[in-house]
Amino acid sequence: MASSHSAHVAPAATRPVQAPSGFNAQARAVALGDVVLESGRTLPDVVMTYECWGELNDDASNVVLVEHALTGDSHVVGDTGDGQPTPGWWPGIIGPGAALDTDQYFVLAINVLGGCRGSTGPISLAPDGEPWGGRFPQVTVRDQVRAEAACLEALGVRRLHAVIGGSFGGMRTAEWVAGFPDRVERALVVASSGCATADQIAWGHTQVVAITSDPEFRDGDYLRHGTFPTNGLALARQIAHASYRSASEFEARFGAEPQPGEDPLEGGRFSVEGYLDHHGAKLARRFDPLAYVRLTQAMATHDIGRGRGGLDAVLEAYEGELLVAAVDSDRLFPVSASTRMVRAYGRGRLRMIHSPYGHDGFLIEADQVASLVQELVQRPLRGTPRLVRGVA
Amino acid sequence: MASSHSAHVAPAATRPVQAPSGFNAQARAVALGDVVLESGRTLPDVVMTYECWGELNDDASNVVLVEHALTGDSHVVGDTGDGQPTPGWWPGIIGPGAALDTDQYFVLAINVLGGCRGSTGPISLAPDGEPWGGRFPQVTVRDQVRAEAACLEALGVRRLHAVIGGSFGGMRTAEWVAGFPDRVERALVVASSGCATADQIAWGHTQVVAITSDPEFRDGDYLRHGTFPTNGLALARQIAHASYRSASEFEARFGAEPQPGEDPLEGGRFSVEGYLDHHGAKLARRFDPLAYVRLTQAMATHDIGRGRGGLDAVLEAYEGELLVAAVDSDRLFPVSASTRMVRAYGRGRLRMIHSPYGHDGFLIEADQVASLVQELVQRPLRGTPRLVRGVA
Repeated sequence: MASSHSAHVAPAATRPVQAPSGFNAQARAVALGDVVLESGRTLPDVVMTYECWGELNDDASNVVLVEHALTGDSHVVGDTGDGQPTPGWWPGIIGPGAALDTDQYFVLAINVLGGCRGSTGPISLAPDGEPWGGRFPQVTVRDQVRAEAACLEALGVRRLHAVIGGSFGGMRTAEWVAGFPDRVERALVVASSGCATADQIAWGHTQVVAITSDPEFRDGDYLRHGTFPTNGLALARQIAHASYRSASEFEARFGAEPQPGEDPLEGGRFSVEGYLDHHGAKLARRFDPLAYVRLTQAMATHDIGRGRGGLDAVLEAYEGELLVAAVDSDRLFPVSASTRMVRAYGRGRLRMIHSPYGHDGFLIEADQVASLVQELVQRPLRGTPRLVRGVA
Repeated sequence: MASSHSAHVAPAATRPVQAPSGFNAQARAVALGDVVLESGRTLPDVVMTYECWGELNDDASNVVLVEHALTGDSHVVGDTGDGQPTPGWWPGIIGPGAALDTDQYFVLAINVLGGCRGSTGPISLAPDGEPWGGRFPQVTVRDQVRAEAACLEALGVRRLHAVIGGSFGGMRTAEWVAGFPDRVERALVVASSGCATADQIAWGHTQVVAITSDPEFRDGDYLRHGTFPTNGLALARQIAHASYRSASEFEARFGAEPQPGEDPLEGGRFSVEGYLDHHGAKLARRFDPLAYVRLTQAMATHDIGRGRGGLDAVLEAYEGELLVAAVDSDRLFPVSASTRMVRAYGRGRLRMIHSPYGHDGFLIEADQVASLVQELVQRPLRGTPRLVRGVA
């Protein structure tokens, strides 16, 4: 895939640029020029933004790429600030002496293509100077990883010491392994899958319908119309959030407790309802609805085996180090999806993250994940990776 | 509870009436007059419709009550017809020689209070001659079962040979046991619970939000405004339907197959998306949105132990025969909810329905459920039920 990659992004066009205004001031950016998508469509003027920590070493061999999840961004660690409404989603993982030790590694996180936190997406301006809106094309996880590879090339990075990601970030990590096996020395895929399950597609569908059937969505052109599908986006998040948690955690935490000051027998809410309302409203204040749709569609079409002989063949052929971990209570990315990857890879065993929280355990059980990160980045390479044979 | 019941419904007011027009021509109806709800509000002119099969015996001791689920109705068996858009939801269960043998039993099914298939609900006319719409009060499972008891009293039925129900119908069955223990000789609760779980409340909430945030909902007064929240109701059903099925069934049945004639990489749908769209649209053509909301709220507030010393005490005290069955792949009414009822009752063991389909297994595995029904109705009573002591 490495060779076909250059057909998709014109490397000559890549250049460091000013990060788009309105986003995290610490983010940097690279302009990729035209990107040809998996669909054959060309997305012009693509800009990818990223944050980085530590120093790139002389032979650019100390790079660790951290892949964020659906509504995450490149701000893996750090405070809120101008253009950065959320604090780091994985506090403590990066820094001197941390699992991703900045005395040793150059850690990068790139905002996903099609998202809304700096990299090109539906709220970016199209060549006509207007936001893309509903015209923003469907993108795939493959498109997203190719754009990330091009971004890294522009920074002089051709191979990665490790790629790490959970959930949707785990999907992109798996795609790195599948699409650029010669560039990825080590990969950690947490609470994720090598291809979307029918169940994930089903739950994603209800979320897309929630957003697109909100009359304020206006076929994705809400910016132009001065509307905003707040209700639809908030509902999508509520559905997603319920799927991110476990029934037993909901029961232990909320049971049938009423929302303080409300009586469910008199039209008031239960506590778990107030909780979902809160999380829905919160996301609707900080995320772009069409980006949510496009990323959800990207997840639905995720399949690292498509056109490559299937998932099993792809992972079996991977010569780097692959670590796969599942959350034992995850009902969205079931343990079976992780087991399938481990079996296909054929080496090592599935790592289990113990958590009562369900899928969100990949974020909440940060210490367990950090241990896996540490194990991965310190792991010596098993065989002779293809990249040192000079084929990369 | 039997004595407090008469305070809620004025028995003198009950009388057989013409079933409301527009509904199943085979349905019959009883007018209950004013019904005082658990909230203290009075719901006037309540009419309950029912269907029945077989003959009531001389001492009215052969009555079996079948409780329908959320979007079901009193049409347990039979074809579609005028005012009856759906065929019987449990074909074959009732008839000569069937599990509910009409040569032996008088089988009744009553449409639920607050629903939209004949009994009083949001689309019924209020005393001012206009549909209740958004004015229709919240009702509880307790209100629903009390109205059913009053309906049966009007028909001369004071005790039940058996009550049988799955899912929301199982909630009402459990409430019969809790609220009218002296009248229920035998009960079968399938794929249900004695009180709503936080997870059920959460998923129900997303469905209520889907409907009520559709601008065409108009605070429940869509009939008056000539609008209809089709999108919201369809989405609610999609969310519900996904929760009724299992991830493994979705995977085996749909995987990542595209909807015929569509390409998910080009904006088209996957097959599982087409399936959900179909089921959402189908329900939106036949069900009332506010009834869906009111019934979902009733399920959320379901707790047979409320004000009665708790679920465990209620079931432990029940002297009739209780059979509890769970579907092993159910992710909406988990096996643990059934286990809890069995433990509280303290006699017999949990019956497991084996099914790959998830919650919907309670409908799909009709033969397994029919066996349980047959076992229950033929079961001799263990002790001396209170009702023959003359306290009922």
